[in-house]
Amino acid sequence: MKIYRKIILLGISLCCTITINAQQKVHTYVDPMIGSEGDGRVFIGPSCPYGMVKPSPDCTVSPNSGWLPLPKEVTGFSQVHVSGTGGGPKYGNIQIMPFSGSLDKLDQTSHRAEENVKLGYYETVFKENQIKTEITTAEKVSFYRITYPKNASKELKIDPGFFLGENPEPNAREAQQFVGSQIEIVSDTEVRGYSRIRGGWNNGRAYAVYFWATFDQPIAKYVTWKDGKFYSSQSAQFDSGKKTAALLSFGATGKQEVNIKIGISFLSELKAKNNIEVEIPHWNFNTVLADLEGKWEQLLGRINLSDDTSEKYKKMFYTGLYHTMIMPVNRTGENPLWTNDEPYYDDFYCIWDTFRSSSPLITLIDPKRQVEIVNGMLNIYKREGYLSEGRSGNDNGRTQGGSNAETVLADAFVKSLKGIDYELALKAMLKDATIPPGGNEEREGRGGLLDYLRLGYVPFGTDRAGNRTMDYAYNDYNIAIVAKGLNHTEIYNQYIKQADNWQKLWRPDYENNGAKGFIMPKDASGNWLDDVVFGESKIQKPTYKYTPTITESPWYVCHWCVFFYEGTSWEYSLSVPHDLPEVIRRSGGDMAFKNRLDTFFDTKLYDVSNEPSFLAPTMYHWIGKPYLSSDRIRTIIKDNFNTSHEGLPGNDDSGAMSSWLAFHMMGLYPNAGQPYYLLNTPLIKEITLQLEEGKTFKITTKKLSEKNKYIKTALLNGQPYNKAWILHDDIVKGGELVLEMDSKPSAWGTTILPPTK
Amino acid sequence: MKIYRKIILLGISLCCTITINAQQKVHTYVDPMIGSEGDGRVFIGPSCPYGMVKPSPDCTVSPNSGWLPLPKEVTGFSQVHVSGTGGGPKYGNIQIMPFSGSLDKLDQTSHRAEENVKLGYYETVFKENQIKTEITTAEKVSFYRITYPKNASKELKIDPGFFLGENPEPNAREAQQFVGSQIEIVSDTEVRGYSRIRGGWNNGRAYAVYFWATFDQPIAKYVTWKDGKFYSSQSAQFDSGKKTAALLSFGATGKQEVNIKIGISFLSELKAKNNIEVEIPHWNFNTVLADLEGKWEQLLGRINLSDDTSEKYKKMFYTGLYHTMIMPVNRTGENPLWTNDEPYYDDFYCIWDTFRSSSPLITLIDPKRQVEIVNGMLNIYKREGYLSEGRSGNDNGRTQGGSNAETVLADAFVKSLKGIDYELALKAMLKDATIPPGGNEEREGRGGLLDYLRLGYVPFGTDRAGNRTMDYAYNDYNIAIVAKGLNHTEIYNQYIKQADNWQKLWRPDYENNGAKGFIMPKDASGNWLDDVVFGESKIQKPTYKYTPTITESPWYVCHWCVFFYEGTSWEYSLSVPHDLPEVIRRSGGDMAFKNRLDTFFDTKLYDVSNEPSFLAPTMYHWIGKPYLSSDRIRTIIKDNFNTSHEGLPGNDDSGAMSSWLAFHMMGLYPNAGQPYYLLNTPLIKEITLQLEEGKTFKITTKKLSEKNKYIKTALLNGQPYNKAWILHDDIVKGGELVLEMDSKPSAWGTTILPPTK
Repeated sequence: MKIYRKIILLGISLCCTITINAQQKVHTYVDPMIGSEGDGRVFIGPSCPYGMVKPSPDCTVSPNSGWLPLPKEVTGFSQVHVSGTGGGPKYGNIQIMPFSGSLDKLDQTSHRAEENVKLGYYETVFKENQIKTEITTAEKVSFYRITYPKNASKELKIDPGFFLGENPEPNAREAQQFVGSQIEIVSDTEVRGYSRIRGGWNNGRAYAVYFWATFDQPIAKYVTWKDGKFYSSQSAQFDSGKKTAALLSFGATGKQEVNIKIGISFLSELKAKNNIEVEIPHWNFNTVLADLEGKWEQLLGRINLSDDTSEKYKKMFYTGLYHTMIMPVNRTGENPLWTNDEPYYDDFYCIWDTFRSSSPLITLIDPKRQVEIVNGMLNIYKREGYLSEGRSGNDNGRTQGGSNAETVLADAFVKSLKGIDYELALKAMLKDATIPPGGNEEREGRGGLLDYLRLGYVPFGTDRAGNRTMDYAYNDYNIAIVAKGLNHTEIYNQYIKQADNWQKLWRPDYENNGAKGFIMPKDASGNWLDDVVFGESKIQKPTYKYTPTITESPWYVCHWCVFFYEGTSWEYSLSVPHDLPEVIRRSGGDMAFKNRLDTFFDTKLYDVSNEPSFLAPTMYHWIGKPYLSSDRIRTIIKDNFNTSHEGLPGNDDSGAMSSWLAFHMMGLYPNAGQPYYLLNTPLIKEITLQLEEGKTFKITTKKLSEKNKYIKTALLNGQPYNKAWILHDDIVKGGELVLEMDSKPSAWGTTILPPTK
Repeated sequence: MKIYRKIILLGISLCCTITINAQQKVHTYVDPMIGSEGDGRVFIGPSCPYGMVKPSPDCTVSPNSGWLPLPKEVTGFSQVHVSGTGGGPKYGNIQIMPFSGSLDKLDQTSHRAEENVKLGYYETVFKENQIKTEITTAEKVSFYRITYPKNASKELKIDPGFFLGENPEPNAREAQQFVGSQIEIVSDTEVRGYSRIRGGWNNGRAYAVYFWATFDQPIAKYVTWKDGKFYSSQSAQFDSGKKTAALLSFGATGKQEVNIKIGISFLSELKAKNNIEVEIPHWNFNTVLADLEGKWEQLLGRINLSDDTSEKYKKMFYTGLYHTMIMPVNRTGENPLWTNDEPYYDDFYCIWDTFRSSSPLITLIDPKRQVEIVNGMLNIYKREGYLSEGRSGNDNGRTQGGSNAETVLADAFVKSLKGIDYELALKAMLKDATIPPGGNEEREGRGGLLDYLRLGYVPFGTDRAGNRTMDYAYNDYNIAIVAKGLNHTEIYNQYIKQADNWQKLWRPDYENNGAKGFIMPKDASGNWLDDVVFGESKIQKPTYKYTPTITESPWYVCHWCVFFYEGTSWEYSLSVPHDLPEVIRRSGGDMAFKNRLDTFFDTKLYDVSNEPSFLAPTMYHWIGKPYLSSDRIRTIIKDNFNTSHEGLPGNDDSGAMSSWLAFHMMGLYPNAGQPYYLLNTPLIKEITLQLEEGKTFKITTKKLSEKNKYIKTALLNGQPYNKAWILHDDIVKGGELVLEMDSKPSAWGTTILPPTK
């Protein structure tokens, strides 16, 4: 099939150049630089789908993805990174750096004269020494092609002591801390070693990254380095809790190009070596790149956009898909904590971000992968006692809001993903919902759970009481739904009741900016709090007025100790994905709710840059005005998303922001944990989803234009379809949805509202 | 000073053979076999004081110390063990096994024809092949001298896949589980690799033990092995989650003796190699042994017994000291979790056992070491959030009763150990006392804490509610004392009140075997429970009558879920080390309490084999009858302790049982966490403690004999001393306590009772 298609493409490209563009491979539309600047923080280097190895330049030690725009200097290229995260950085391990010169200086920082990035490929030329570095990668092995200028001496630093986010303060909050490292020159073409680091954003226990590096030219000379000193006659520097490194010289003669394979493993150096033997048993850079492109083409090609889609939209869309599928990371076979036949995924960073649209998008494109990821999550629960939330570096944690893994499990359940032990999943969810994590509540489970169970809400005084309550209520709904499906009626009855717990923090009379009723702080005795106290000082008791628009806490309140984490009451008061009709009723009915939403978007109370607002633009659906949702979405995308380096309005958070965009460009948006998508006006005229068993689902528009932006009528498989939402089942069984567009809103989708609790 | 002494010794041994025995080095009295059979489970191989490496034969995969008596077969010799523990085994890593024969069989199990063990030295000859194995060790490197029979071929298995307690059930309770292993033939004299194991008694996360083995003869031939298959042309087997090993042949020619050094590290193979270079840069077995003996001599020689002490008592006493000082294990420089300048100790296995007498004995013999250990504990708290309880394999946990580390910290504080940050210690203690460990309550902190804080006791239904309540009350007393000393009056006031919490479970009217008042199960509503329910079945509700003499729970109740862990109410009702006067009062006064104690000991309600009863024999002190304590102690020792292989009546538990004996042989017994020792009739006529700064404290008896077993009068530094207890301070400032003995009890020590709350 694949070969056949290639032959056709070849035929086309030979005979009709005019259609080449239309047949262009979809992976070429991916621009890894979208969202690389500003707040996006995406990883810009090459990565396989869910790839363990992510090589990329490190520009100083502070940026999260490692990369910063020119003219920032480059300290080297390290092999493990994450994408789009906020807070303190993680990883940045096993750094290499080409240079020309004597072997007497560890710091070989250089500046980029140019830089070229495409999917699977990174290239830069250094200003100071004209050395060209090209990078591509396999799943667990990165591949470097270094081209030194003619007659220049060819040197390379290998620095397993480097990591991102170095901070001299021991145990500094969110900072990675050095534990140990080691390096050995094994032969004249091989170096092995490791780096052991702890901390980082999730305050994780130590993780070790092992490497095996091989070169296609012999090392002519080397020095090893430890803790500030060079050693010319020691081929190894053992781990004594100090940084180690080596400077290698390939001499000035021979070919100018040095190829380097760096096998990475989380188990051992020999496993890293084996990863090279398995993945790249050759020295062909282009083959590695082509393999990687092939993997992405196979995945990205599962969604086809009509030929007339603009280059801009193609780039935005496929880059969105791409960003969604570089994390979490597949570390099957690389788990140093236990061994079994289950898949192992790490870097859920974090589920609070990704449960909303990333997981559902993976489910739609690649359900088998999502089954693997879910089974990996359950396996972590089985071995470590709790589901992950912000797991990274083989360590659970940390939590921001709810036990959001529950939504991911419920989403898999309601979408009938096969091959998952849902009884086990329910057990894992119930663990979160019943066993407080105690002193580990920053790491996993539900902080403030005992109060939540006793009072029905998390009282003010517990960190993040507001958003925890909102999330727990939804997570309880997730549990209820799974329990019901598995015929655990008692559990269902209990949790469907707890799903209303958000109402306990709803302060009905509270007005702000014309809206009425807000989620507001309440103390353990049931008193609403207008002024809230922060800090532990018994003498100074700083208080300040708490209002629904407050986004920033005073300087003396830690980021984690606020009532609403990274959001306002305006946002979180809408955060009831399972019972919007009740929010609407409490807000004063449809009209009042419409006004509330309008105020929300028009006065910038909506925060496009963060996940708590993700569902909000579609909420007009629940008052029977889906065209208003479409209007909002279209405006939001137009104003905030584009193909520039600043093309994402906030942290991409492992692809969360990108998946939000990709869904909306298709006119679909999931309500994660529930079995349907909201339908909106797509940005693309025709979208074809390649589903399992050769099925397809096509979303076709008729007369879609800038002006004709409203859905007039819809046909599903030829039958009139009057709902502004569609079941997941209706998509995966294949078919076609035809949307006829018009220049003004219609009655379509206004009567049968989306499902609810 | 040391040299001078040696010269004198030499002079004596040359001129007067008759006194040689008197001058015999004290380490020669250590017999590592005492307590090796029966329940003692002591480690019998060579070990440095607190030594990280503990090489020893493994006889099948089940015993805790690895060793079992002849004729049990030996599967090999592994390098890491613990001593005296119960429950599922831990460690047993990096096994080697000499054999003669072809390289085609992994199992090389043999039988011992003979076995010789002395401090620092192990020797056996195998029946099947006459191969002699001798073992000694440095701190982090074990040293083997293997002598093969003439003309026999010299083979050796190295098996990093082996570990103790293998169980096919994944995650089986208390069972170690294989995670991964690796092996590489580095050169014709070097092999490297590692073993990664999880689980074990404390259900710990994975730990890795790295090794570097070197031989003084070249490998003539080898095969490597992985997962059931041999590989003759692969010098390495990488970690793929499968067991790996190698069989080496040194051929049949050359010298018959093969010397092997096995460096061990918890960081890396190169660190293990470095450990060899640092500790044993030579090939002299006897030098390694002599160094080890010297270390022990220096430590054990800090307590001198009078020349006329019987060989039996010398053996019992010095072996007791020896067992006390082989755990916890000093892993400074070997911590894979974080790096700093603090000491790192592991294998607190567990503090529930060792806080009572092991820690106080180390404090008395080697206060600098105890400071290191305490600082290691605080460092663990700083990095991991909770103090350890049963830490092993770099992982906290698990808990049996209280947060007993608090007693260790309080003990250091009341004994004025210098160089400890006691404010930090108080913080660590308060963490245990205030922050519930939630889902991790099996690992650390105080399980059932919220109920304990709310009700003042742990209600029945929570695992181990009885002994947890008793321990928490004492731990709260420990906190109060430290808080008071640091002038935190509010904290003191709160915790000194909580120290009375044991009274909430005291059922005053309950009678049993003539005694009145017992700690009994109470539910959360405050009802005493006569019949208790176990199990979770809603249909079958098995109940049984709970009485103060019940030791065994029904078969359907897990070992961990009982009311009293490893003990009865008879034992735990006495477990109030800080307020025995109140126990006495509640028991009906002095006479009733005497009867209670007499019944306890005479009807075998006292359990000599486990720690909860440790303080009981000295409790006659609190009713002014210290001579009855002495009588009990003498009888207990006579009936239960001796120099045989079964010379310890219960699990030695990292030296707990041994330290109890050693203290009592000196006529001293600590009440851990409090600044004094109870005085009893010593078993030894004259004991001299070598203290810091060249001071000594001498306990001298006059007329001590089988008959004259009662203290008639005492003089402390020449002054009459009428208390049957002595402050730690009075000992460490140096001096002499002279006890004049008599054949009948006297009024000595009967009036000024030991300090109390």
